[in-house]
Amino acid sequence: MSAFILRPRSIISMVKIRRANDADQDAVWEIIREVIAGGDTYVFDPGSSKEEMLEYWFSPEKSVYVVSEASSHENEVILGTFWLKPNQPGLGDHVCNAAYMVAPAAHGKGIGRKMAEFSLEEARRLGFTAMQFNFVVASNTAAVRLWQSIGMEIIGTIPKAFRHKTLGPTDAYIMYRKL
Amino acid sequence: MSAFILRPRSIISMVKIRRANDADQDAVWEIIREVIAGGDTYVFDPGSSKEEMLEYWFSPEKSVYVVSEASSHENEVILGTFWLKPNQPGLGDHVCNAAYMVAPAAHGKGIGRKMAEFSLEEARRLGFTAMQFNFVVASNTAAVRLWQSIGMEIIGTIPKAFRHKTLGPTDAYIMYRKL
Repeated sequence: MSAFILRPRSIISMVKIRRANDADQDAVWEIIREVIAGGDTYVFDPGSSKEEMLEYWFSPEKSVYVVSEASSHENEVILGTFWLKPNQPGLGDHVCNAAYMVAPAAHGKGIGRKMAEFSLEEARRLGFTAMQFNFVVASNTAAVRLWQSIGMEIIGTIPKAFRHKTLGPTDAYIMYRKL
Repeated sequence: MSAFILRPRSIISMVKIRRANDADQDAVWEIIREVIAGGDTYVFDPGSSKEEMLEYWFSPEKSVYVVSEASSHENEVILGTFWLKPNQPGLGDHVCNAAYMVAPAAHGKGIGRKMAEFSLEEARRLGFTAMQFNFVVASNTAAVRLWQSIGMEIIGTIPKAFRHKTLGPTDAYIMYRKL
């Protein structure tokens, strides 16, 4: 029976989080493309181009990260990406803002939670004293529950701020926690 | 007595609101410079340069306006400026965002209210269906009262999101109304 339980050493995989670099852009775009195609969680037009989305995701004020999985015999595979940036400039730059995307094929592996937990630690390390999300789609209950489980609280609701592809006008939450 | 009540025709002034153009940039910068110097209402670092602030105020996604006063004998004087833009891209671009500044020397003339009322009409005309302010400093009670008087409601409070120059950590409000 053990053959069915123990996977061969060669396909044991490791998930790691690291800063993104230029070589990750194609993989990050694939994730963004698949995530925004749904029109159900992010405001970006599903028809947004690779150029405009990468310019947005990698804009200079952001620290961008990727979550990758690598086995000893395979190339690294990018499963998710997120960024951190000040939510406001100047006298408001102590509050962090972040956005996260997981490749649809990697859902259910806990990648979102890994990124979320890591990002709070990283935001603290970068000197931020709070985290704020400006636009969490209310119907995205998996995300809302994940954020609540790491201590983010709903501090405001924007009525019908999101034109959900299938549900129509949908509320968005503003979420916040101290770090 | 009439001489004390009626002002000479030559200094009767008219306030008007129009789209800003390149020739307004120096005047707009003077207003921004004076407003952010206080460190009490806007997040921008009081030491921000003319270049970075004009790049921000006139960034491509914004419709920028000025309020001016002109008499028959004098050049037009810019008393205030504001802009409108989508608060989110794509599937969230039906909610408008705006920012307003009044030259300190023009306070008390109702310029803020004129801009506020005009901006709601203009946002409707541009096709927006709601207005959202993301960061109204809670201690700026004159502004909060003005926004409330034109129907904006506080829909969220961000704890200590603003490092007020004299009051220290200060809450910021998120305000919203339908159009």
